[in-house]
Amino acid sequence: MKEKQLLMLPGPTPVPQEVLQALARPMINHRGPEFKSLLAEAAEGLKEVFCTRQEVLILTGAGSGAMEAAVSNFVSPGERVLVVSIGSFGDRFAQIAQRFGAQVERLEFAWGTAADPAALADRIRADVNKEIRAVFVTHNETSTGVTNDIPALRAAVGDHPALFIVDAVSSLGAMPLETDNWNLDVVVAGSQKSFMIPPGLAFACVSPRAWDVAAKCTNARFYWDLGKAREMAAKGQTPFTPAIPQVTALVESLRMIRSEGLPGTFARHLKLREMTRHGVRALGMELLAADAVASAAVTAVFPPAGLEANALRKMLLDRFNVVVAGGQGKFDNKIFRIGHLGYVQGLDIIAVIAALEMTLNICGHKVELGSGVRAAQEVVLAENA
Amino acid sequence: MKEKQLLMLPGPTPVPQEVLQALARPMINHRGPEFKSLLAEAAEGLKEVFCTRQEVLILTGAGSGAMEAAVSNFVSPGERVLVVSIGSFGDRFAQIAQRFGAQVERLEFAWGTAADPAALADRIRADVNKEIRAVFVTHNETSTGVTNDIPALRAAVGDHPALFIVDAVSSLGAMPLETDNWNLDVVVAGSQKSFMIPPGLAFACVSPRAWDVAAKCTNARFYWDLGKAREMAAKGQTPFTPAIPQVTALVESLRMIRSEGLPGTFARHLKLREMTRHGVRALGMELLAADAVASAAVTAVFPPAGLEANALRKMLLDRFNVVVAGGQGKFDNKIFRIGHLGYVQGLDIIAVIAALEMTLNICGHKVELGSGVRAAQEVVLAENA
Repeated sequence: MKEKQLLMLPGPTPVPQEVLQALARPMINHRGPEFKSLLAEAAEGLKEVFCTRQEVLILTGAGSGAMEAAVSNFVSPGERVLVVSIGSFGDRFAQIAQRFGAQVERLEFAWGTAADPAALADRIRADVNKEIRAVFVTHNETSTGVTNDIPALRAAVGDHPALFIVDAVSSLGAMPLETDNWNLDVVVAGSQKSFMIPPGLAFACVSPRAWDVAAKCTNARFYWDLGKAREMAAKGQTPFTPAIPQVTALVESLRMIRSEGLPGTFARHLKLREMTRHGVRALGMELLAADAVASAAVTAVFPPAGLEANALRKMLLDRFNVVVAGGQGKFDNKIFRIGHLGYVQGLDIIAVIAALEMTLNICGHKVELGSGVRAAQEVVLAENA
Repeated sequence: MKEKQLLMLPGPTPVPQEVLQALARPMINHRGPEFKSLLAEAAEGLKEVFCTRQEVLILTGAGSGAMEAAVSNFVSPGERVLVVSIGSFGDRFAQIAQRFGAQVERLEFAWGTAADPAALADRIRADVNKEIRAVFVTHNETSTGVTNDIPALRAAVGDHPALFIVDAVSSLGAMPLETDNWNLDVVVAGSQKSFMIPPGLAFACVSPRAWDVAAKCTNARFYWDLGKAREMAAKGQTPFTPAIPQVTALVESLRMIRSEGLPGTFARHLKLREMTRHGVRALGMELLAADAVASAAVTAVFPPAGLEANALRKMLLDRFNVVVAGGQGKFDNKIFRIGHLGYVQGLDIIAVIAALEMTLNICGHKVELGSGVRAAQEVVLAENA
């Protein structure tokens, strides 16, 4: 028998059995009463996760589609935007803004570090003519396993009129994000991360101020037109035929999230992060992100010197059916990334660390069996002490 | 016990039990070997249905997203396009082209009729300066239940250099469409119609000539960038995280389609159309589309005088859990539409006709019980004679 697969990606993440079963329900009319009620329950649950009183729009597509919406609905061609980038998903925002005709200025920080709020404050202060119309920020940079300090970055923009637009695709539900309290204008997220459902849905939340900008925005948009999505949401519908199975699954997963409670969910993700970091470090491997900015959703790891990251990943997959992600862009084949968000528990981390220990030994990098596992166990016991 | 639901929409359509179960499989890595092999099998099966040797791209989103792609990848701002419209989905192509900056000219025909190839030929002949860069046509107009004669319309464009772009969202797999033999440049389709899987995927097929146009196209596109999708498809991947459950389901449904065979599938849809039309007419109701242009996928029906279409639909739903679609645009509440595509068989049509008979009587419009059913049965027996 093949080993059970242990899916440790920063998305797609494992889907609970009861949520998988929800996917298999017969089709229904997406413009009928049953779907309307599903959509209403999902939208209410999403509001709790987004910490907002605004409508959360449910869109069919990948998180990158919602990122496009966060550009094409709020930035008109020729307008200047500032993209804060600490990795490949920050770069993606810049690329989308360029494709949609914005004058893109990048505020870049080394991959593996977080954005410096003081640098952002400097740039904003220098914009005396208020030419910057929007600031784009990644909450959790999936490519490096670094989390930006959103409240500090928001404070750095202060009362400058630029919209503050946040990619929360891999953060929302895994770590605190308070759309309204933090005064965020646009927040986008995806379904296949901490929401514990398959890919296929994206979400967007828009402040009243941002809706005013959208009403005047001249950029080309049709499928990702958020104004149209809002208009249809008011009728309990979506503009286009939605991914019905994922909406049905979302209702189930939001019930699970409510039952754990957001504080419990965040604490669990922090514990998973600590178990991963301690376990990996005990095996002598280095981490890309410093502790102070380390993500609760994904951890990027350098393999031991002389061992290629992708060779290690392949051995983990072939021998133990453990799936971890590779590096992106400049870190391709230099790092591997362990996703620990969504439907993941401590014993999953222990299993991954144990598989890593054996794989390293198979690859000729001797490590003491059990030493990484022990470090992870100590995190659990310290928490229970 | 509630009546079993009979879903008779022109999408979403019923999903076979074995395909539903495929949706419920655990998540896998969308950049790993297992998904790559699923994607390859799906892409091969799609080629058979599209009747093409070109790549068929698998996109995550609704069919309308693929319609946007059919505009934004091939039409640059300021270019003139001709949109042939016979209903609300033709109008949608015009609306998208306008949003993306094209100079849109409409060639409209009355709702309920098909496009006249001679009128298209006249317009094309008049374009002596070859200003028209693309002709957009709906194959099967879902809003009216009318099918356009694509080969005749293609012939009307002749050797004019305009791209010939076809919305086959509700036609593909339900009626013949031969992408290569008919010399179509772009064909787009959706998952929740005759493919018998839930909504969430869209498909696009592009001719070599159209790829050349796309390479020079200046329109804004990111999520729906088909060039990027093609580049990633060559690696067995998608640009963004795909709706994995729908891809898994598609592989199953394509096996079912292959096992029935396309000629068998088309014959079944024609039989369903004839059963519907004869059954409904026997109850004294009129049909929107003339026989010569009637769709094999959906039939639009006028309720008896004095009975509102939506009241009839509500009674069908409340009493018998039969779901039919309403009218769109100018036919809102004037017609109802019976979808008969995808996983639908003759006895489903009989059940709908029987429910209609009872519903009409409940609503005070006396019809002879069994008279519509008999007319539908006679279609079946004539076929078997």
